[in-house]
Amino acid sequence: MQRSADLDLSPRILLGPGPSAVSPRVLRVMTTPPIGYLDPEWLAFMDEEQALLREVWQTENPLTLALSGTGSSGMEAAIANFLEPGDRFIVGVNGFFGNRMCDMAARYGATVTKIEAPWGEPIRKEQIADALKQGPAKMVALVHAETSTGVLQDLTGVADIVHGAGALLMVDCVTSLAGVPVKIDAMGVDVAYSATQKCLGAPTGLAPFTVSPKGVAALEKRKKPTANWYLDLAIIAKYWDKNRAYHHTPSTALHYALREGLRMALEEGLEKRWARHRANAEYLWAELAKMKISLHVAPEHRLPPLTTVKIPDGVDDPGVRKRLREEFAIEIAGGFGPLAGKVWRVGLMGFSSRRENIAALIGALKEIL
Amino acid sequence: MQRSADLDLSPRILLGPGPSAVSPRVLRVMTTPPIGYLDPEWLAFMDEEQALLREVWQTENPLTLALSGTGSSGMEAAIANFLEPGDRFIVGVNGFFGNRMCDMAARYGATVTKIEAPWGEPIRKEQIADALKQGPAKMVALVHAETSTGVLQDLTGVADIVHGAGALLMVDCVTSLAGVPVKIDAMGVDVAYSATQKCLGAPTGLAPFTVSPKGVAALEKRKKPTANWYLDLAIIAKYWDKNRAYHHTPSTALHYALREGLRMALEEGLEKRWARHRANAEYLWAELAKMKISLHVAPEHRLPPLTTVKIPDGVDDPGVRKRLREEFAIEIAGGFGPLAGKVWRVGLMGFSSRRENIAALIGALKEIL
Repeated sequence: MQRSADLDLSPRILLGPGPSAVSPRVLRVMTTPPIGYLDPEWLAFMDEEQALLREVWQTENPLTLALSGTGSSGMEAAIANFLEPGDRFIVGVNGFFGNRMCDMAARYGATVTKIEAPWGEPIRKEQIADALKQGPAKMVALVHAETSTGVLQDLTGVADIVHGAGALLMVDCVTSLAGVPVKIDAMGVDVAYSATQKCLGAPTGLAPFTVSPKGVAALEKRKKPTANWYLDLAIIAKYWDKNRAYHHTPSTALHYALREGLRMALEEGLEKRWARHRANAEYLWAELAKMKISLHVAPEHRLPPLTTVKIPDGVDDPGVRKRLREEFAIEIAGGFGPLAGKVWRVGLMGFSSRRENIAALIGALKEIL
Repeated sequence: MQRSADLDLSPRILLGPGPSAVSPRVLRVMTTPPIGYLDPEWLAFMDEEQALLREVWQTENPLTLALSGTGSSGMEAAIANFLEPGDRFIVGVNGFFGNRMCDMAARYGATVTKIEAPWGEPIRKEQIADALKQGPAKMVALVHAETSTGVLQDLTGVADIVHGAGALLMVDCVTSLAGVPVKIDAMGVDVAYSATQKCLGAPTGLAPFTVSPKGVAALEKRKKPTANWYLDLAIIAKYWDKNRAYHHTPSTALHYALREGLRMALEEGLEKRWARHRANAEYLWAELAKMKISLHVAPEHRLPPLTTVKIPDGVDDPGVRKRLREEFAIEIAGGFGPLAGKVWRVGLMGFSSRRENIAALIGALKEIL
């Protein structure tokens, strides 16, 4: 007896802040049956996945892996592992996710120094230097791609300032990895995490994570283990390295999908993929300009995978989004916090970053507005 | 250009401690494209998934959901949310997972009292009563189904003792849910978690979780939020209830699969499913007895989903497991800790609990031994 109906969700063109669309090729590999977490074939799979992750992150970091949680678990792991009670933590807050870092860090007993910019602007390097001059810090965190505001944070020269003051540089790459240039080693980033459901074009559920040798040295100097056992890198690393020590059972389905997403990104080529994300964003921006609709972020700070669109005066924000969804099967998102009711957030990430999707959105907006 | 080969793992009969096999029906739904985390169709999906979860848990608990992590994240959530620094936590330790609870709880600053039994025996009720007589405790934890030892913990009368002393009862149901009778409300359990890749027959990656009204009241009385933001039930609950407040992006693929696993469990019927797990385990036990191979756990405490088999004298433990895997594509597991080299662990869980799998294992063992 069937206890409920077969799964039957409506199709959607996903142009929100994530999840983004997943290619049929990635979806299909998830039907591969599971395999044991110590099976030699699975261990070989993990080694290959790690190599693909390093290539996409543009890093040689040995400690590169995918955590068993969403992108948010990546942020938590960065904070839980690299901060101890009393450590000073300098956080660039220019959107929702910087605020979340402050919340998390306070829970672990860190002393948080916020450096702020309006929602829609980047953090300036001088602000970081000033905060470091006021006293030493364990770590400085920036959001590379603020999904709540559509700002791409320029990281040029930041690592020199941070390392010069003896601190680690942590960067949130949730919406940047595989969508805009992310070069962990060249940028001097010590701790970075991302998510699978944004520009990587895989389903939600894993958090790609990478730690520099300097970051590993800091981990080894901890006085006490982190409170967070599930995300404790010191023990998780022993499963990903030659020890193969059991920590928890990984989700084979999600890892199969992530590997396929990574392969597709590398087959396309990172440079070409970054260029595709930018070209499609520019197409969207140009079409909106033709409609006299303006954008929230100045051109030089715009994040191609996520555009914040100023809602034209007198337009019914939720009403338009509802019509887009119901009449055109298109999802875009509203704004958070100070941008609620002021902007729409349009994501062009991974497999969703396609010209036909932009044409559909523009056509639908012309019909509705 | 293909950068690596197509995914091509060997087939396996998964008779280890998990992951267990996933039915084609469950695997197939994962190819359903993702949908937005605030889409009305997704929210309706979540409501239905919650109702199915309550039915499988046999509970009316409003706070019933699936966490975005593996079963281990369920254990961490139970400890991180229900214990505060200084709280006394009584833990039944008769295997690997009881020890893990102690490790986690110490990280969150709890004062841990262990009550111990040998690996292969259950905790006795009198031990719990004695520990509670020595002083008040915030929570008492037991492992319902110890995957490391193959013991099923009898919970009859335990809730009365625990509640009589003003404590909460936390139970690890990772290997029991949908494989042996689990009746949260009837058993008086306040906090329980499970995993999807064991008797539920879904892929790894989510942790079904349920909290009694008494547990919810305890959550509301916390002095400070838990250190663990990612698993903070107070905020996660606000996404699963009518607030629909964004916390993190759920993995649609894993939830689609979990819903299908729950439907299949309820279509089979819980009573029939429990009986199937027991009948198949008894078939395995009888066949092993014919081979003069004995079991580690006394009949009255045996856990049908996981059997610990005494490795016959003079037999090469890893060698046999390797031949099972390489010549018969069968996975079983070795023992942990004090049982390393002494037992094999044979899982008969969910879609893996099938007579043909047992026939294959017995046939292979006869060939190899």
